[in-house]
Amino acid sequence: MTRTVGSTAADTGARLRQAALQLFARHGYAAVSMRQIAAEIGVQVGGLYNHIPDKQTLLFRLLSEHMAELLEAVEAAEIPAEPLPALEAFTRFHIRHHAARPEQVFISYMELRNLSPENFALLEAQRQDYEARLSAILERGAAAGVMQVEDARMATMAIIAMLTGVNTWFRETGRLSLGQVEEVYWGMVRRMVAA
Amino acid sequence: MTRTVGSTAADTGARLRQAALQLFARHGYAAVSMRQIAAEIGVQVGGLYNHIPDKQTLLFRLLSEHMAELLEAVEAAEIPAEPLPALEAFTRFHIRHHAARPEQVFISYMELRNLSPENFALLEAQRQDYEARLSAILERGAAAGVMQVEDARMATMAIIAMLTGVNTWFRETGRLSLGQVEEVYWGMVRRMVAA
Repeated sequence: MTRTVGSTAADTGARLRQAALQLFARHGYAAVSMRQIAAEIGVQVGGLYNHIPDKQTLLFRLLSEHMAELLEAVEAAEIPAEPLPALEAFTRFHIRHHAARPEQVFISYMELRNLSPENFALLEAQRQDYEARLSAILERGAAAGVMQVEDARMATMAIIAMLTGVNTWFRETGRLSLGQVEEVYWGMVRRMVAA
Repeated sequence: MTRTVGSTAADTGARLRQAALQLFARHGYAAVSMRQIAAEIGVQVGGLYNHIPDKQTLLFRLLSEHMAELLEAVEAAEIPAEPLPALEAFTRFHIRHHAARPEQVFISYMELRNLSPENFALLEAQRQDYEARLSAILERGAAAGVMQVEDARMATMAIIAMLTGVNTWFRETGRLSLGQVEEVYWGMVRRMVAA
């Protein structure tokens, strides 16, 4: 019995996150009420508060879980130690991971302005943890003389922006497969830091 | 007398756009009412309708004027004909132009989803007009053998994403001047298409 109740609660929690994600992505955080989210998943608005104390916490959890999932996934991707193979693995990982989560990526950028200062600081720490992995690859590559990197921080931001930008134009029904996109982007990233 | 009335109307129109831009950037289009915009500039909501028929038209004009201004500015930048100097001039122009307009750039990306299909199509045409200028430079460079470009469309999207991405991290009070940022980004763009 406890188990069934637990499963149902977990299920409602998951549907709540999914509904909030879609409503925030479509209309924006500020325009969506807890009442609308409750209606979307077919529960009373009071029932939501068993799962989440308020809308700000809901937004923060969505963004923070997106970053936690990214950090776990990059860990699981087993990026090699050698700088150039590491950069290739990171490039391909970043494109694939983000292309599979367009709504999370969109609200992660768009709704930063709606986080409380405390929540924004927590999210920034997660983001910097991810960015630091790419910066470390570039610094190792520059130190080993296999990459030219004037400024590891700017190169990190440039590479992440160009890779995440794939989400703005890539369509699965388009002329190119994601594998072809990865290939061309890896060529551009490799040249961008060519020693 | 006509002249004074005309100037006042133009002034209200400009203040209306500025207020809408800031409110949309802060709260999102869907969360902002015409009443709030009117309150922000100190007029009755009925007075807004002398300037703009509805909120959708207001959003479209903001985004469309941003693109029109971009197209005029790139024209005025007198990009040279030679491919490599053209790419350098385009890179520097794009960073400078966008860094000076963070709110317009932000809502131009974020509020695309709130345009009507007709307005979206009009804006897309303007955007493609701009992107085509960069694609043409890359194609000329590849044809002349001074650039390596596997896919001019993807290289265009990659370069624009990385350059516009400067807006997400650059602060005028930071460790770098915009001139230094331009310099490092031009180095990365040049290598990205190195033949």
